[in-house]
Formats: sequence, structure tokens, C-alpha cells
Amino acid sequence: MLNVLTPNEVLQLIKDEFNEIEEVFEYVRIDAAVGRVLAEDIVAEEFVPDFNRSTVDGYAVRAEDTFGCSESIPAILSICGEVKMGERASFELLPETCCYVPTGGEVPVGADSCVMIEFVEDYGDGTVGIYKPAAPGQNMIFRGDDVRPGKELMLKGRTLTFSDTGALAALGKAEVRVKRKIKTAVISTGDELVPCNETPGPGKIRDVNSSMLTAMLHTYGAEPVSFDIVPDEEEELEKVLNKALVDCDMVLISGGSSVGTKDATARVIEKTGQLLMHGIAAKPGKPTILGKCGNKPVFGLPGHPVAAYFVSKLYVLPAMDRLIGRGNRPYSVTAFLSENVAANDGRELYISVRLENNDGRLIAHPVRTKSGLITALAGTDGYFCIERDCEGLTQGAEVQVFVNEAY
Amino acid sequence: MLNVLTPNEVLQLIKDEFNEIEEVFEYVRIDAAVGRVLAEDIVAEEFVPDFNRSTVDGYAVRAEDTFGCSESIPAILSICGEVKMGERASFELLPETCCYVPTGGEVPVGADSCVMIEFVEDYGDGTVGIYKPAAPGQNMIFRGDDVRPGKELMLKGRTLTFSDTGALAALGKAEVRVKRKIKTAVISTGDELVPCNETPGPGKIRDVNSSMLTAMLHTYGAEPVSFDIVPDEEEELEKVLNKALVDCDMVLISGGSSVGTKDATARVIEKTGQLLMHGIAAKPGKPTILGKCGNKPVFGLPGHPVAAYFVSKLYVLPAMDRLIGRGNRPYSVTAFLSENVAANDGRELYISVRLENNDGRLIAHPVRTKSGLITALAGTDGYFCIERDCEGLTQGAEVQVFVNEAY
Repeated sequence: MLNVLTPNEVLQLIKDEFNEIEEVFEYVRIDAAVGRVLAEDIVAEEFVPDFNRSTVDGYAVRAEDTFGCSESIPAILSICGEVKMGERASFELLPETCCYVPTGGEVPVGADSCVMIEFVEDYGDGTVGIYKPAAPGQNMIFRGDDVRPGKELMLKGRTLTFSDTGALAALGKAEVRVKRKIKTAVISTGDELVPCNETPGPGKIRDVNSSMLTAMLHTYGAEPVSFDIVPDEEEELEKVLNKALVDCDMVLISGGSSVGTKDATARVIEKTGQLLMHGIAAKPGKPTILGKCGNKPVFGLPGHPVAAYFVSKLYVLPAMDRLIGRGNRPYSVTAFLSENVAANDGRELYISVRLENNDGRLIAHPVRTKSGLITALAGTDGYFCIERDCEGLTQGAEVQVFVNEAY
Repeated sequence: MLNVLTPNEVLQLIKDEFNEIEEVFEYVRIDAAVGRVLAEDIVAEEFVPDFNRSTVDGYAVRAEDTFGCSESIPAILSICGEVKMGERASFELLPETCCYVPTGGEVPVGADSCVMIEFVEDYGDGTVGIYKPAAPGQNMIFRGDDVRPGKELMLKGRTLTFSDTGALAALGKAEVRVKRKIKTAVISTGDELVPCNETPGPGKIRDVNSSMLTAMLHTYGAEPVSFDIVPDEEEELEKVLNKALVDCDMVLISGGSSVGTKDATARVIEKTGQLLMHGIAAKPGKPTILGKCGNKPVFGLPGHPVAAYFVSKLYVLPAMDRLIGRGNRPYSVTAFLSENVAANDGRELYISVRLENNDGRLIAHPVRTKSGLITALAGTDGYFCIERDCEGLTQGAEVQVFVNEAY
């Protein structure tokens, strides 16, 4: 018997039934951490910068010594020294004096601003003329301007980007504590399947889902664990599922999820754990199963690769994010339909698109296909969703396209 | 002397001066190919599917045998066999007969449609009753419906996504020819720099750019080649640049690009090759250098990490795409400003944001900072650009945010 849920009910079910895997983490070098999920809050422990710095090549001055100067009446100051890059400014700047400081160099005690070198003339006799008055604080960064000890910079659960890498480096964190990757079993079932590098004999087809789901898991920072194709034998599937559950945090079984003679996945999940749902009111994706064995999610994905693609993005990814404690971030881009699209029979409908950048305006070309597998997957850039109560969209209509993750 | 270009002029210069690196490729397994750039056109060589298939669990029929049937007057047909999953349907379906076919199973010759099992009653005497008429072609995929030999599916230069992996698997391509990764040297210069895992002494700061640029290159599918920090000595930098040019396709030198006493990068590029530009009319990013040594791009990036971040996204990435023959795809998301933002002094201005998902509406919180390095990098989700002729944006204004690449 099918227990069919709406997409939102499925997402709620995932939230309710599964929890973040407790404190399993590892340390990785920050330059290899992009896409990984932070397992610690990042809190500054020092002042950055740790000294007052100039933001220009120029002269450190006391601002008041330059007040009222102009191109015709320069302020004349004595040069009291020069700050070298990467060295301490070990003297104090006295009134009516100045010193050269390169961009990023330390501004000596006593100085409160820097004048760009363009507005300074070196007279060659130990004095310079300043042609533009400085305001206090001008062209300087003060100690701790960027961060001070105790400032919270990134929270646990954040997916690291390469700009975060920069911040971590500045804080002196060469390694960072991240969540261990979610180990996920990839199992394809079906007497009709042959490995994708073989030529299918009569009545056979290639196993597409193993490769696609493995690639998906790599893309989203999980660790795929591959299994051989399982024939349509319930005992065999049960054996493989139990083997997968020993090591893996999550299991994806694809194929065998239609309510036909071959429907073994649901029964095997019921034997091993608990069947949470059987069927989603969305197209594609209807014959999707979700179970719970121990505390681990076990998905029965549709055998049809296009349906498996959408289900993995829409439900497997949120489940993975739940286990790893990551906030899911479904960004979309605005695009405009190249043609009319008819709506569906009261179920949410997902449609793949190719995107074309028409002088800054994104055009979404729906990929229409009668269960076409390759045509619906090859060369698409993302997908959009037609809500269940929508009666169709016309050419030029604005749609929100969820784009693929490669760049 | 600065040769300052506008952002668009820089992009044009990159296009004009550099070419795709000729035919350097490798073969990778498709499940590890996401993010890689195709080095071959993908053209179908077979029919997919290779036989007529049912899209439902049900009975294959001749549609005309079911015309006019209804719930009250079923069409009575004899069962002439059963198709097993993954086996050839080795018989022909004769008039007034039908046979069971599972989802994905082969539809025998003679049948032209399938009736879902829900509309069929098995009388147990070798006959069934069909309660719903079938239209020819209904619930079937015909041989070659998806693709036929010769169909172009993906073109050279495409960045592979995991849905592409699915299509490649369906075509039997377990490995795919992709462009070799662009080997890119990462060189930081500056007497003030210490490695990021060290505590900086007086006047020193940590080398942020090496880690950040390495992470950036990993993220975009390039191969970073790391060098030790180079002191501000022209001969030393020249030596390292020449060493890098032996093996690498592109060189990133950061630091030393301000017009000050330490400005060695431009001179070293001029000695080794040709200086193409010195300065971009944008903020941040002004003190950016681009040179050409042999046919290889050599960037002098600003030492300031925030500026280096933007320059690497805005110009280094397009240069890499040029070398690898990839069309750049700058997707943006629509978001709404959380506060007023003042515009700038006639230069394009780039502002980092944190994004907040407010019930489906993305709110962009500008990260305001006075050259703050960590605060501008840590925890940001992307950036938007204020055009040079814009006088500022008000709270609630719509902006296009270019989001980071991690998910």
C-alpha cells in the first residue's frame, strides 16, 4: 500500500526522523577545505591587524601638522625615518616630522594618518612638502580594526568557500575542523541492468544510476561507497543492505521501487528497519521510498535516471545536509521561458532546462521529452518547478531555475 | 606608469591575447568527472533505448483491441505470455491477446501500447479484462525515442555536471575525455609575509593569498602549484617566475603590485615577457597587473586579500576559462538590499554580501568594512557590483548577487 506524501511532507519527515550525526570530524588543510562543513565555530583569538598599518604608499604624519596646507602653501615636515616593509616602526613620530611608510607597513606611534606619496614632494634636504591636508585616521587601518579577540566569524555547519579560506589563513588557522564526509552506499538493483561500460544484451539496459549518484555524492561532498548490481532477489538485496548499513551513514537503493512484481526494496526495508513513506506526489519522483534502519536513512530511488536525478537533488541532498548539520541553501536564478509549458495533473512538476545567456537575460529552454533519459539529462543546466496548482506557464514567463553545481 | 583599463577592456584583452591550450587532455571515470571540461563532442552511437519498452507495470496490447471498452464493458483478451525484466520478449503479440510487462520491460512485436495494471483484472482462467481503452503508443517508449545514432548531445568545452554523468553512463561511456587541468603557479611576495601557520612578528602579517588562491584553483578545477614566499628582491622573483613558467600554464603573483618601492612584479614581467596592463578602474582591484610570458598569462594580483579575491573571480577565472576552452557562466541570484549602499567615485564597486533566505526572498546584507580583510571574507555568500555610473542603491533595491561556488 502506498503512503504518498507531498514534497513538503517528505522534507518535514526527513527533519523529524533524522538527526545530525554526533561529533564526527577531521582536520583538513584550509586550502583543501572548500565545500566541507565546519565542525567548529571560528572565533578570533587575536587582533587583526596586530599593528597600525598604512593603506597607501606615502608618509605617516600627525594630521594637525598638515591642517591648512594646499598646493600653493605646502606643509614642510622633517623626515624622521623610514619604515621598511615587514619591520617594526621602532621610533615615535614627533610633531612637525613625518616618515615614509609603504602600503601595509607599520605606522609609528605618534602618527595618526598617512598622506599618499602623490601629494608629497621630497626636497632632498631631509624635508618634504605636503600638498594636501590629512584627516586623523586617513589611509590607516588601526590595530584590531578588522577583528578583535572573541569575535565570532563563522559558525559550525557552514559550508566553506574559498573566501573563508582567506579569512582562516589570516587568523592563522592552517587546518580547520570539518565534519567527516557522509558515507553513502550506492546500490542499483534490477535483473535488466548491466554495468555502464558493457553493451546491453536483449532486454537489458545500462546501469546509469550508479555512476550518476556516485558523481552526485562527490559533488556534494559525501563519500560514495559502491556496490555491484543486485539482481531482483529479495534475500540478495537484504544481504547487501545489511552489509551497507555496517559502514555507511546513508543508503541509496535505486530501481525496484515501482509497485510491481519486483518491488523488493520496501519489503527489505521493513524487515531491516522501518518504512517511513512510499511515494511522493510529484513528477518525476512518484515511486520514491524512504526508510529508517537504526538511525540511518535508506532511500529507494526510482530506477528511471531522470526521476532518480530529481529525487536525489530534492530529498537525498536535504537528508545528507540533515546528517551533516548543514543548512541547505537552495539558490535559484531568474530566467525567462523560451516557450509555453503546459502544467500537470495536480502534482508538482519538475522540468529540466538549458540556459542561454542572451545579453545578460537568461533564457530557459525547457527540455521536453517523453521519459527521454539522455535528452533530459545531457547538457542541461538546471531545472524549475511548476507548482501543483499552476495551470501552465506562457512564453516569457519568469521562472526560478535551480542551477547545477559545476561551473 | 600605469596603463589603467576598465573591467570590460581587461576581459577583452584576455580574449585577444590568450588562446585555448591545444589538445591536452586525459581520460577520467565519469563518476569523478563533475566540474571537468569536456575535450570531445559527445555524439550518440546507438539507439537508446535499444528496444520498445513499457513505462508502466501492466499489459502490452494492440490498442485497437481495447477501443470502446469501459469499466462496465471490459475488453476480454487472452494472456499469451509474460515478459520478464531484463529478458527478450521473444514472441509476437497476436490480435486479441495481451501479455504482462513490468516497468522498463520489452514490449513484444505486435503490441503498440501498454495498459496500467490498475485497469486490468486477471480472471485467473488465462484471460484478463481491460477496463480502459489504450491509445496507440500509450505508456511506451519506442526504440530510439531518447536518442538515435549521430545525435550531438554535449559539445567540447562544456563543464560536466552530475546529470551529464547520467547521460554518459546511458551511452556506455564509462570514461570521458576531458581537458587537462590548468597548472597554475601560486606565488606570494613580500618581506612582511610569514606562512599562515606562523605567528607574525613585529611588522609582519600572515600570507593569506597563497591558501586562498590555492583553494580557489581547486574549486574551479585547476591544479595549483605552490611556491614559497618570495622576499621583495627582484632577482629572486625573476628566478621563481622563470621556474614557474617551465611547468605551469599560468602564474599568479600576489603582493608587490602597488606603485611603490617594492613594485618588482611589473618589472620582472617586462624582463621575461610583455606587460599588457597595469591597473583596473574598479574597486577593489586597482593595482592589478597582467602580463604575457611566452603565451602564458602572468597576473600580478593585489596583495590585499579582499582585492585578490575579487580579481581572481573577475579576471583570473576568465583567463583560466580561456586557456581551457570553457564558456564562462556567470550566474547570479536576485536579492534585495538590507540597507542603503552609497556609490563610489566613478569606478565599478564590488561589495561582499551575506545572504539570508527570508521565506524564499533573498536578503543581501552588504559587508561594510574599511579594508577589513577577515570581516569582508569570512562567512560571505557572494558579491554584487555597483556600476560606475550608479549613484547609490537604497534599502530594498534589487541586486544581482554572484554566489560562491560551495554548496
